[in-house]
Amino acid sequence: MEPVLGGGVVELEPVRGRELQLESTQKSHRLLAYSDALLSIIATVMILPVAHTKIHPDQKLGESVQQLLLAKIAVYLMTFLIVTVAWAAHVRLFQVIELIDDVLALLNLACMMIITFLPYTFSLMASFPEVPFGIFLFSVCAIVIGLIQAVIVVYGFYHPHLLNQQIQVSENQNFYKHHILKIILRGPFLCFLAAIFSFFFIPLSYVLLGLVIIFPHLTRFITWCKIKIVGQKDEDEEHLSLETFTFYLSEPLSKERVEAFSDGVYAIVATLLILDICEDNVPDPKEVEEKFHGSLLKALSEYGPNYLAYFGSFVTIGLLWFVHHSLFLYIAKATRLMGLLNILSLAFIGGLPLAYQLTSEFAEKSHNEIEAIQVSCVITFFASIFQFAIWTTALLHEGETLHPFARYGGKEHAFMFAKLALYPCVSLGAFFLTCLLSEFSTTIFHLMQIVIPFTFLALRIFVRIALTVIKSVTSLSRQKVVLLQEEEACLSAGETLS
Amino acid sequence: MEPVLGGGVVELEPVRGRELQLESTQKSHRLLAYSDALLSIIATVMILPVAHTKIHPDQKLGESVQQLLLAKIAVYLMTFLIVTVAWAAHVRLFQVIELIDDVLALLNLACMMIITFLPYTFSLMASFPEVPFGIFLFSVCAIVIGLIQAVIVVYGFYHPHLLNQQIQVSENQNFYKHHILKIILRGPFLCFLAAIFSFFFIPLSYVLLGLVIIFPHLTRFITWCKIKIVGQKDEDEEHLSLETFTFYLSEPLSKERVEAFSDGVYAIVATLLILDICEDNVPDPKEVEEKFHGSLLKALSEYGPNYLAYFGSFVTIGLLWFVHHSLFLYIAKATRLMGLLNILSLAFIGGLPLAYQLTSEFAEKSHNEIEAIQVSCVITFFASIFQFAIWTTALLHEGETLHPFARYGGKEHAFMFAKLALYPCVSLGAFFLTCLLSEFSTTIFHLMQIVIPFTFLALRIFVRIALTVIKSVTSLSRQKVVLLQEEEACLSAGETLS
Repeated sequence: MEPVLGGGVVELEPVRGRELQLESTQKSHRLLAYSDALLSIIATVMILPVAHTKIHPDQKLGESVQQLLLAKIAVYLMTFLIVTVAWAAHVRLFQVIELIDDVLALLNLACMMIITFLPYTFSLMASFPEVPFGIFLFSVCAIVIGLIQAVIVVYGFYHPHLLNQQIQVSENQNFYKHHILKIILRGPFLCFLAAIFSFFFIPLSYVLLGLVIIFPHLTRFITWCKIKIVGQKDEDEEHLSLETFTFYLSEPLSKERVEAFSDGVYAIVATLLILDICEDNVPDPKEVEEKFHGSLLKALSEYGPNYLAYFGSFVTIGLLWFVHHSLFLYIAKATRLMGLLNILSLAFIGGLPLAYQLTSEFAEKSHNEIEAIQVSCVITFFASIFQFAIWTTALLHEGETLHPFARYGGKEHAFMFAKLALYPCVSLGAFFLTCLLSEFSTTIFHLMQIVIPFTFLALRIFVRIALTVIKSVTSLSRQKVVLLQEEEACLSAGETLS
Repeated sequence: MEPVLGGGVVELEPVRGRELQLESTQKSHRLLAYSDALLSIIATVMILPVAHTKIHPDQKLGESVQQLLLAKIAVYLMTFLIVTVAWAAHVRLFQVIELIDDVLALLNLACMMIITFLPYTFSLMASFPEVPFGIFLFSVCAIVIGLIQAVIVVYGFYHPHLLNQQIQVSENQNFYKHHILKIILRGPFLCFLAAIFSFFFIPLSYVLLGLVIIFPHLTRFITWCKIKIVGQKDEDEEHLSLETFTFYLSEPLSKERVEAFSDGVYAIVATLLILDICEDNVPDPKEVEEKFHGSLLKALSEYGPNYLAYFGSFVTIGLLWFVHHSLFLYIAKATRLMGLLNILSLAFIGGLPLAYQLTSEFAEKSHNEIEAIQVSCVITFFASIFQFAIWTTALLHEGETLHPFARYGGKEHAFMFAKLALYPCVSLGAFFLTCLLSEFSTTIFHLMQIVIPFTFLALRIFVRIALTVIKSVTSLSRQKVVLLQEEEACLSAGETLS
């Protein structure tokens, strides 16, 4: 990971003029890691206002505070969606531009600053759906982000030694430049229209902004339909199109950046709860004196469920990270589809602290507690099932996407399968058990939390036992088949004899 | 960055039994990056309760809320200190253990969980300084962390293929094992004593806990004194001692991990303020209706200073990250002393959002505003001067620690110097200007924030101009010297002639 300052390129082309340009170029990995950290924090941190919505224990979940909670969840989901879209665009951009210099680093920081401001515009939109200012502000931010990215592209093509090798050696650099600029500037153009329409007819603005996200897939779909109907491909364009600006689901995605972004999300989600605990669960010295006769231990025992919620949420997120980590060790190449599934999984991960906080807040009330536990189970289930889907997707093209030992029939295949299947199975099981045995729901939930880490520790042994059992059963049944066939053969032989 | 699953080791020693063990080993870089993210978030997130302490604008800063604020700042500083100590121990541990498997990954996650719980024990200590429970809980956590680390070491030495090459090929493995275990278990032992004494005499507990941090440096100091007095070295021990468990200030530190930890701190600090803005600065729909006659824009203009505080803080942190990034591109090898200076710089970085929030809260009151601005300047100054100190330390052993082009006299040396000197100079200048021209303090502060990013963009040009000027001046003065010498020579020649 040592930064090689463009030295390799100098050696290839020892032209004096270029060398002067190159003295300030750097590998971009740390800039990208920092951007990933910023974006992952922004994407998940908006779950905190949702969690801070106070619900009184005597209120039934989902009555009076429903609207407020819904608005906040909408802000969280919109932020998550937009930030991940921005992240994907950022990944694509820096797959074209591979080296950076100081100007690009500063432009990138400016871009990050505007992106981190987006959650505030969503908060305004959610609180004042009738007022055009929120959506106007968002559109302006999106336009600025798009323009900065366009400047980055123009700057990159003006200093071609920064570009990736494929484009650098290509003769169609100008075509690529216009192709990429066209794709990048489409966003700001639609946002510009949205900003104008926000003063006349707000719903149209929302439609236009939605279009920004689905536009690439829409054009791809239209081209696909055209090919199906007309039955002809535009060979020329197909020939020239870039591997990284195609919007195909099989388009390669930087695996390193998927990992960095996911790590950021897992890390911030794992630590969100400790902040609440430190702020809310330190008892007031006066109260301890009056209510608990100065006994701190008694006062703290009031907060028992909160500690359990913290450790429960940390353990679950930690283990889901562990599964994710194991999974991506086995993946050799990530595709856009895997990235999409990963982001869906992360969106549910972001909801986990909220779910666990619910379990701690309704410690006594039986009905709400079951609901909270079931919500936790459902969120865990979806977070883990999308991880499983990444694995399934990888298996479909296992020759390209997986390392040999993880492919079907490989040594590690069964073990990986068990790791990925554990959380979906357990959370689904816990969900149905709480439906059936509603009295013991808390016990079941806590038991599940305690058992799972130990299961992971001993999983390799379990898998080996299971494989041996399966092998012996299949060999037994094969023996039986052989015996039956022999018997049949004997019988038929007897028949022919008789 | 592609994970190579211990394959290299297999090729070296193709023993069948070892290969079976190796199938599950992995490179540890992602586990370490995740740990770095968790630790950096925990280290800095405790600044939030400090920032959330509400101070009324009519109160003078530092009167009634002083004690509460001090307690919270103490919690922040203690957390930061302890987490960075834990991080340094973690770095040292995983410089010995280079490959991981599932068991080590899970043990490491357990260790992380306990570390993230530490801030809560500090909150208890700060709120109840008289009650032993806080310090007892902290000691117990520290003991558990130490024991888990000891288990990791024992597990690592039991599976020697996980260890680093130096130890793997060594004949004194047992000596190393005991040496490392002795150092790691010293902490839990002292904490155990602290836990016991917490019930009798709390100050002694604090002393014991403080000892955990300075103990390694203390023993090093005593050895040093012994050598100075007796004048003899224990050659045998010196010969066997490890490069990574020496506690020398020149001990090498993983540069990659210093970068990852710093990135985490910069990222979380840069985004902390947006959370507050989203929660506190979205006006209440009812209030807008009543107070501002439904005009959202008017209501929002009330919050103007907060937006400025957000952008100001983001820009400052972003640019300090940029300087840090440039600095570490030039550093070839990081030492423990650089790590220490880096951590001091980061501790001040953590205080920046607080300072900026102060500037937004006292928008109108003149006296408090100057104080807030001066606090911001001081924090920025210390954050940037410690970065400068890293550079100075690197220059002391530039042959080992710096890449050739950044050394004294190298092409990039002057440019790096300018980059590092900009923030200390500007913040110091702003500080003294606000003292002299207290009426224009806000203008000066905002002007500084706007000018700095553009200065960075054009810094290379400024440096080149400055260098040309200096060169021409020195060559002029050299010419003068030459002329003077010639004149002198003429005069003396004339004298000898006359």
